[in-house]
Amino acid sequence: MKNQLVIYNTLTRKKELFIPVVDGRAGLYVCGPTVYSDTHLGHARPNITFDILFRYLTFLGYKVRYVRNITDVGHLENESTESGDDKILKKARLEQLEPMEVAQKYMNNFHRNMQQLNVLPPSIEPRASGHILEQQHLVESILQNGYAYEVNGSVYFDVEKYNQKFRYGKLSGRNLDDIKTNTRQLEGQSEKRNSFDFALWKKASPDHIMQWPSKWSYGFPGWHLECSAMSMKYLGDIFDIHGGGMDLAFPHHECEIAQSTASRGKESVRYWMHNNMITIQGQKMARSLGNFITLDELFSGNHHLLEKAFSPMTIRFFILQAHYRSTIDFSNEALLAAEKGLEKLLNAVGLLDKLPASTESSCNITELKEKTFAALNDDLNSPVAIAHLFEGVKIINSIQAGTEKLTSADIDELNSFFKTVVFDILGLIPEESAGGEKKNELLNEMIHLILTLRMEAKARKDWAAADRIRDKLIALGIEIKDTKDGFEWTLR
Amino acid sequence: MKNQLVIYNTLTRKKELFIPVVDGRAGLYVCGPTVYSDTHLGHARPNITFDILFRYLTFLGYKVRYVRNITDVGHLENESTESGDDKILKKARLEQLEPMEVAQKYMNNFHRNMQQLNVLPPSIEPRASGHILEQQHLVESILQNGYAYEVNGSVYFDVEKYNQKFRYGKLSGRNLDDIKTNTRQLEGQSEKRNSFDFALWKKASPDHIMQWPSKWSYGFPGWHLECSAMSMKYLGDIFDIHGGGMDLAFPHHECEIAQSTASRGKESVRYWMHNNMITIQGQKMARSLGNFITLDELFSGNHHLLEKAFSPMTIRFFILQAHYRSTIDFSNEALLAAEKGLEKLLNAVGLLDKLPASTESSCNITELKEKTFAALNDDLNSPVAIAHLFEGVKIINSIQAGTEKLTSADIDELNSFFKTVVFDILGLIPEESAGGEKKNELLNEMIHLILTLRMEAKARKDWAAADRIRDKLIALGIEIKDTKDGFEWTLR
Repeated sequence: MKNQLVIYNTLTRKKELFIPVVDGRAGLYVCGPTVYSDTHLGHARPNITFDILFRYLTFLGYKVRYVRNITDVGHLENESTESGDDKILKKARLEQLEPMEVAQKYMNNFHRNMQQLNVLPPSIEPRASGHILEQQHLVESILQNGYAYEVNGSVYFDVEKYNQKFRYGKLSGRNLDDIKTNTRQLEGQSEKRNSFDFALWKKASPDHIMQWPSKWSYGFPGWHLECSAMSMKYLGDIFDIHGGGMDLAFPHHECEIAQSTASRGKESVRYWMHNNMITIQGQKMARSLGNFITLDELFSGNHHLLEKAFSPMTIRFFILQAHYRSTIDFSNEALLAAEKGLEKLLNAVGLLDKLPASTESSCNITELKEKTFAALNDDLNSPVAIAHLFEGVKIINSIQAGTEKLTSADIDELNSFFKTVVFDILGLIPEESAGGEKKNELLNEMIHLILTLRMEAKARKDWAAADRIRDKLIALGIEIKDTKDGFEWTLR
Repeated sequence: MKNQLVIYNTLTRKKELFIPVVDGRAGLYVCGPTVYSDTHLGHARPNITFDILFRYLTFLGYKVRYVRNITDVGHLENESTESGDDKILKKARLEQLEPMEVAQKYMNNFHRNMQQLNVLPPSIEPRASGHILEQQHLVESILQNGYAYEVNGSVYFDVEKYNQKFRYGKLSGRNLDDIKTNTRQLEGQSEKRNSFDFALWKKASPDHIMQWPSKWSYGFPGWHLECSAMSMKYLGDIFDIHGGGMDLAFPHHECEIAQSTASRGKESVRYWMHNNMITIQGQKMARSLGNFITLDELFSGNHHLLEKAFSPMTIRFFILQAHYRSTIDFSNEALLAAEKGLEKLLNAVGLLDKLPASTESSCNITELKEKTFAALNDDLNSPVAIAHLFEGVKIINSIQAGTEKLTSADIDELNSFFKTVVFDILGLIPEESAGGEKKNELLNEMIHLILTLRMEAKARKDWAAADRIRDKLIALGIEIKDTKDGFEWTLR
């Protein structure tokens, strides 16, 4: 099974068989969140997409090192001109907080939300602010190789020079001439030679509260730098897979390729994977459009666009119902449908342990398994895999109803296959809270039954039985109040 | 209330009124875990102790910045000679893992355990490996001031030189002459001038996989350095409180004082607080003694010394039942007693919302409040505060039983006071799982009652009633199996 995983490589625009650099091991780097605000819907998709990849590679037997960074410095607000303040810094000044306190708060929030979505923690979660030396080291090697220049304590990447030897724009399918045509000229207010050059190191103004010493200036690293420095540090100069949202392909990943190549003379990433975007009722999500939804708002239902709360597992299932390279559109209807589908799936999983066995089988479980894994091997085609799981749901329900049959060996195979795919690979788990509510409902029904039986005892004048029932309920801590419509109960 | 908190300062060996450096704000630094193994009982105490301090300062109205570090580099195994390998490094070689992967795994484990213990995350959780530049900067300033020397790419702190101007040993009550007498002489195999000098920067051997470039060598910082660098970075050159376990006072905190003073010319910490140790059945906890218990083992009961599992809240309550400066001894008996006590306390809290009000009060709630806060103000005397809470429990139970009475205003005051202290300050929360188990027990009892009623119906030949009960249970998804001893049930 191991050698059948095929992934779509953004760099070659082709599906390619996954062959790792080191046999039996897989190195995976994914761009993590910038921790200056609440985790939102836009974070859910890449993190769930690459969680499935992490889980599936692990299932296939690879020893996976999954690195996902935390950007807590250097992400400029105005990316096109790079003249804006650091986003975290701005927030910190606003709230009069230490930038690291802001970063910590939102990082904790991100971790909590990922846990709710059952996204596994990565093997290593490096922080940009924790790798300043590594980034400075990378700047030095790019300077030494002649692909960067220093101006007034800042260091910029020389895109034109780089493009003479390598090709800038190959990942996103751009070429430098087009970029030149489409970029406005510098008005003389910039230190950069060309508007498309990007900062590797920025000199900080004296009142800038996030800065580190360097041989060029007290300053901070450019945003693109951290991913190049940290991916190569933890995965090696050449590694297997780099993932992220499609919106990061240009300029972020393009600049990463340029930095790594300028430093090492060769590209470091073998497979580039990009997940597509989420739209909300057909629109891009943006604060200015009023359709910006945080994960906490989704889970609580506390947002004007939401008809109700949707559980983390519903969100996870919803995202997996689309292939990661397709767009998906969020709407109440679509989420309600996902909620129903997930319930149906998990109900079937709940039946697996007690299906009645027959002496023969009327369904082909091996074929079902093969089709499902074939879908996962085909560039992680989760919607097709889920469609096959629903064929399995039909089989499970038919066995339960007695209209189809399976031998005990086939039931075991179905059971193990289903739980592996649903729990381990897709990471869908029955929600605790749902279980709690179910028990409350059950208790309610039981107490009503018991009280009905007590009324019947009274009706047939069996006072001893009626008293015994009352005393037993009291002993259990249940208080009954008679109301106009019957009775209410509370638990002490 | 704000100006009444008194804390015991290890430095002056006196209880002192807490007066912050900046009015209305409190800066707190606590030594966090070295993340190279599972979180154990020894981690529970300092983290719970300073969690109470964090919560209490916040309750008193201070804006608290609580910094607790993660040591993921530089803690040498053989501290006395500093010739041992880095602990994390050793484990990484053993497991053939990247050191940061080991650190990440155990850091995640630590975070999970702290969450279970309801220990709040600190405001900032800096990692030693993420502050190499800051540490190098500190070494430079100590070198510049003449209190350190470089030998073969390593830099050592010159304790003797420092002691000529300042006093080395003042925190732990040692003086250098005694230390000299009690320390064996160097045999010539060390680069250090004196055996009591300590490393600020260590040159790494070429195969050392955790090393960073510096002006002295590729190497790594000495263990004591990180806390000086990170506390001053995030809290300022002079800050309020530094906490940690008593075992860290010497040499770790002593060296921190020396480093900060050598660098800045003055001490940086106003109040030093140290929690005492935990013993297990009278012995020190140590792997070699076979009495080493991890928190996961405690929570699961999976350890030969444990009679049963103890919940995180039981551990928390047990630790709070002793004053943080006293030793506490772990035993099954003591934990069982804590479990019982906590249940009694939380049961009383559960009654608070439905206490019957009277027209007058027979108990003095204001006095109870004052006594409780007086105990907390007295160097966080949690056992005395808890004793007062149990006076409150007695009042609550007496009101419930009708033998004492409170006005509605007094009930409100008691309610708000109790929940503030129990939930917000002591951080004791009713455990979800306990609630779940209770419901299961209740369901069990109900089903038995219903089945008994059904047997009685059969006995009096009321077949219609017996069938109705059976059908209702089936409709609820409950399956009944007759057994020799009566019946068993399962929920579909």
